[in-house]
Amino acid sequence: MAFHPLRDLTASEIKQAASLIRQLHRDHELVFKAITLEEPQKDLVLDYFRAEKNGTPLPAVPRVVFAAYYFKDTDRFITTHVNLTDNAIERTERMSPKFHGNVDFHEVEAVEELTLKDPTVIAEIAKLKLPDHLCVIAEAWIFGSDGVVDHDRQYQVYMFVGEKSNLDSNHYARPLAFSPVVDTARMRVTRIDYIPTGNTHTAHETKPWEYTKPNEYVPEALNIRKDLKPLRVLQPEGTSYSIDSENVLQWQKWHMRVCFNYREGVHLRDVCYDGRPVFYRVSLSEMTVPYADPRSPYHRKQAFDLGDIGAGLVANNLALGCDCLGSITYLDGLVTSPSGEPLVKKNAICIHEQDNGIGWKHTNYRTERSCVVRNRELVIQQILTVSNYEYILAYIFNQAGEMHYEVRATGILSTAAIDSGDSAPWGTVVHDGVLAQHHQHLLSLRIDPAIGSYETGNRLAYSECYTLPMDDFNPHGNGYISKTTVVDKPGGLDLDASKNRVFMIQNDQIRNAVNHLPISYKIQVPPMQGIMAHKDSFHFKRAEFADHSIYLTKYGHDELFSGGKYTNQSRGGGGIKTWAARHDNVVDNDIVVWVQFGMNHVPRIEDFPVMPVEIMKVGFKPVNFFTKNPSIDVPPSRQEVNQSKMVPPSETSICCNGTDSKL
Amino acid sequence: MAFHPLRDLTASEIKQAASLIRQLHRDHELVFKAITLEEPQKDLVLDYFRAEKNGTPLPAVPRVVFAAYYFKDTDRFITTHVNLTDNAIERTERMSPKFHGNVDFHEVEAVEELTLKDPTVIAEIAKLKLPDHLCVIAEAWIFGSDGVVDHDRQYQVYMFVGEKSNLDSNHYARPLAFSPVVDTARMRVTRIDYIPTGNTHTAHETKPWEYTKPNEYVPEALNIRKDLKPLRVLQPEGTSYSIDSENVLQWQKWHMRVCFNYREGVHLRDVCYDGRPVFYRVSLSEMTVPYADPRSPYHRKQAFDLGDIGAGLVANNLALGCDCLGSITYLDGLVTSPSGEPLVKKNAICIHEQDNGIGWKHTNYRTERSCVVRNRELVIQQILTVSNYEYILAYIFNQAGEMHYEVRATGILSTAAIDSGDSAPWGTVVHDGVLAQHHQHLLSLRIDPAIGSYETGNRLAYSECYTLPMDDFNPHGNGYISKTTVVDKPGGLDLDASKNRVFMIQNDQIRNAVNHLPISYKIQVPPMQGIMAHKDSFHFKRAEFADHSIYLTKYGHDELFSGGKYTNQSRGGGGIKTWAARHDNVVDNDIVVWVQFGMNHVPRIEDFPVMPVEIMKVGFKPVNFFTKNPSIDVPPSRQEVNQSKMVPPSETSICCNGTDSKL
Repeated sequence: MAFHPLRDLTASEIKQAASLIRQLHRDHELVFKAITLEEPQKDLVLDYFRAEKNGTPLPAVPRVVFAAYYFKDTDRFITTHVNLTDNAIERTERMSPKFHGNVDFHEVEAVEELTLKDPTVIAEIAKLKLPDHLCVIAEAWIFGSDGVVDHDRQYQVYMFVGEKSNLDSNHYARPLAFSPVVDTARMRVTRIDYIPTGNTHTAHETKPWEYTKPNEYVPEALNIRKDLKPLRVLQPEGTSYSIDSENVLQWQKWHMRVCFNYREGVHLRDVCYDGRPVFYRVSLSEMTVPYADPRSPYHRKQAFDLGDIGAGLVANNLALGCDCLGSITYLDGLVTSPSGEPLVKKNAICIHEQDNGIGWKHTNYRTERSCVVRNRELVIQQILTVSNYEYILAYIFNQAGEMHYEVRATGILSTAAIDSGDSAPWGTVVHDGVLAQHHQHLLSLRIDPAIGSYETGNRLAYSECYTLPMDDFNPHGNGYISKTTVVDKPGGLDLDASKNRVFMIQNDQIRNAVNHLPISYKIQVPPMQGIMAHKDSFHFKRAEFADHSIYLTKYGHDELFSGGKYTNQSRGGGGIKTWAARHDNVVDNDIVVWVQFGMNHVPRIEDFPVMPVEIMKVGFKPVNFFTKNPSIDVPPSRQEVNQSKMVPPSETSICCNGTDSKL
Repeated sequence: MAFHPLRDLTASEIKQAASLIRQLHRDHELVFKAITLEEPQKDLVLDYFRAEKNGTPLPAVPRVVFAAYYFKDTDRFITTHVNLTDNAIERTERMSPKFHGNVDFHEVEAVEELTLKDPTVIAEIAKLKLPDHLCVIAEAWIFGSDGVVDHDRQYQVYMFVGEKSNLDSNHYARPLAFSPVVDTARMRVTRIDYIPTGNTHTAHETKPWEYTKPNEYVPEALNIRKDLKPLRVLQPEGTSYSIDSENVLQWQKWHMRVCFNYREGVHLRDVCYDGRPVFYRVSLSEMTVPYADPRSPYHRKQAFDLGDIGAGLVANNLALGCDCLGSITYLDGLVTSPSGEPLVKKNAICIHEQDNGIGWKHTNYRTERSCVVRNRELVIQQILTVSNYEYILAYIFNQAGEMHYEVRATGILSTAAIDSGDSAPWGTVVHDGVLAQHHQHLLSLRIDPAIGSYETGNRLAYSECYTLPMDDFNPHGNGYISKTTVVDKPGGLDLDASKNRVFMIQNDQIRNAVNHLPISYKIQVPPMQGIMAHKDSFHFKRAEFADHSIYLTKYGHDELFSGGKYTNQSRGGGGIKTWAARHDNVVDNDIVVWVQFGMNHVPRIEDFPVMPVEIMKVGFKPVNFFTKNPSIDVPPSRQEVNQSKMVPPSETSICCNGTDSKL
């Protein structure tokens, strides 16, 4: 039986692809970076949808796999497309030396191990004269680009002091000032970089380590508060959603296909409300984290967390009762091991419902009757660990036809050594001898819309509000109007709060039955400071998407990643700026809308040792898509159902605060 | 025994004040608009705090009441200060005709009743030739200002069609095009305004009503969804907070005094974390809702929801299990009836804890050990019904030392009649024959800070980020720095996302023990489009606060309301622009920071008949106030405590969707 064209790759498909590729290179051991579903041709998928809808025979949509791999211990990087339907190689390509495969954590572990065994590194560590209970931790970072040796695939290995007796001691509180560089073709340390520890470019030889206090986050090292009472979520009748064996999810009139791959992690396809299409595909396209420290080797410090690393590869195994409350469904993700075997990322996706306060309310002051409904949400979540940092990423749907994409930034700041008493304007001292450098988190969401239909094109428009002139028509000067402008060419666009500029994806061919306006979804995106790096820098050139809140392009096959398909040590090009430069028609056509947001993270000391979540949200809300509030039919909020408990003030009590004041 | 100076007014104090005032005006019947606690003198309160801290005898702080009232059926508006401690009138003032007392719902009911009994209105209604099952609903609106007859206190009464058989039918879906005006000194209809129903200034005589469909929100009129399963919050060991008999609340190292009055509703005093002061007083100062329709009588349509109406007076009676989940404590509010009696607003305040997802997380990729805590929040909430509209207002605290002020805008759009087929650029057609005019919700928060101490002054500063020039120091162009600027004069200030401008309230005299930076709280405020009305309009002049996201003033006694103390039919002046114009020293002094935010509401049809909550949040977060993440000591999130339930995909199921597609 043929698979649905949008179904995730299965384990047997990964095996089939790996086997065909191994046959292609019988003389070489391969190190796989990716075996993933090639995006199926959109026109064929739409044919498939039509056939499904009409009950006609389903057309065959070829299952094609994209694979990227190295010949082991070489720099030979190869990509191959395998047609699984035909059981045949479609095409294979030896990649130019300017392209590199992504980091993976098997490789990271190997790099860290070899670094600590390298004689030059051992000699350097000896100079620290560490006390017996301490050890050195190596942490391999993506190398970044600076135009010098970008063709050599390398790791920058940052070094820290750890406690031998506690493998989970927070070594980020004790950074060292030397950094080995590892070449991955030869898998060996090629040099040691010395890192400035003041606020100038001057670096020093490694000296005996001066003791600094630990700054731990594991509970056994802390005096934990004792006055927090349990709070549980109970769903006695189970969940309001259903998920079938192909991960097609139905919940409160929404249906969608929950997909997962090594690079994007969770992404959604065929997102519909009450049978009406909203999005063909929604995904996180890229995230870049450029750092502010201008000194070597930090001038190269810039991560592309999807392209360099892979949101699926670093997905956390989510734990029952820790990462969400209530009734939770976990789905596994499937990625590929370096040897080309299917690798299960256990519990990589969690799905649950949550209550988000009141959904709508009105009290008639004449009758004092209140009508109130709660705002039930469905959360599809994954959590990434990118070395020190964590991202909690969630698609959140509600009953009012809205989707939010929520990012919670947490985890540990990336740290550098700084001399006691020094400070630097590109960072914050967060612990004795520790500088946390300023950095940006700049995310790019890819929205492939299908507002109301798969059969018609969409357009991007924005509404703005303008004060009317004070004249005979507006004699008292209170008047203002809204005005909608259609975006008629591809490119980057910015927010403008002073005009209340609101971007909307519209279907001009389908009009609202009541007010005859185009059915639309608006985009509520928080403002960001675009990428700070100089326009002539590699940081800027590589992060092609990071200068505008919105990009608009015409749909193109294999145009999923706004920072380019190969970001590791990239030098720019091949990303969204290329596609936006085409003179495509983007009005009432097959368009893609890219939504950029993020934060310029000037660290606070409160962000250490682990930072409290910083929450960012992008909203997609219907505008004249329905003929009334779609959540008007949500059942009223009632005590009989909710079974809340009234606690009179006199019955509130807490035990004495068991912790000490620390400042 | 003397009251704590910050304790809310008690019922007996209200009675005492009313009694003294009645003695002052033996020959008149009085209609009270307010009897409320006069803000106690701050220097005396700080003396009181010092005595409390040092265990020395507590100084007497006079309890003073402010009262505002009319001689019944006149325009004589009087304000009086009563010293309860001395049981004596302090001062009394016959107010100038330019000042008016607020609306109250006793008066609104009377106005609506007399309107419907007025012969000219009855004659007008007769022209509608309504079917027997329909009736006319009168809705009294604050009159607004236009420079014509602002000295006469009036109501603009909007008229709607309702269903006789359903007192909760949504009459806002059937607006009429005539509007009686009521003079409150004489309590009678003085004229009927005719409202244009096209998109010009032309109004027509009242004609027989043309039938339009209802658009209801009450559940019995709707086909309610059947597939939503219950979700309950269980707190088996009770709450983590305690509230004493004076409404002093303790929760997770926070303590504060929860206060309530007729105008501001819930406000907070003496907000401290772990014994360290953060805010002396936090309150919603004002909210204005100006409308965009330039035509008469809508040119006057502008509400000041606190000054014109009173957030305490219109507080909802919150219902167990409907307005929040879990274990909930309700507090009553106390206001004054028109006759001067204490009036209990039952369950005006609800307090509960909620889970807001993950608080922080880190997974060590070497050991795969995750440390994760949940983000428990404390919510202090009230809900206002301002005629058609609802505001859900909440102070939300968390364990990371953060406070958020959350506003959920919901309720019913204010509507106007529009001819079928017409549209207007100052509104959206949300139902047949119904225009919802664009409007703004512009809120002003008053923050009286005490960052780290009551003994030292505070300053307002902002940090910005700048790209470094590409030069020898920054050869690769990735460098950027943050820079902090102290605001050295009072006035209005704006956001600038392009510079990542972040406002912070700082205590420069108390430095962080680790990095020696001033202890601070930053303000995360979403951007807003400032008030749209023309600078020469009354809308603009009255909404003194509505043009800048931030205002800074030196503390002044009786300077609580940024739009002025008397906003009803005000003409501007007496608000924040006056205070900001003083050449006060605002650096390391007793300052007040005013935070403005809101939305320009261009209605969607989805906002009708009741709009899904639009959520706005202002955050106050510690910056170098602590020496580490203050929530690092929160107990780990554990299944043993949380008792979540795993639901395999195969066990998820929903009943068939019982509702029909409506479009």
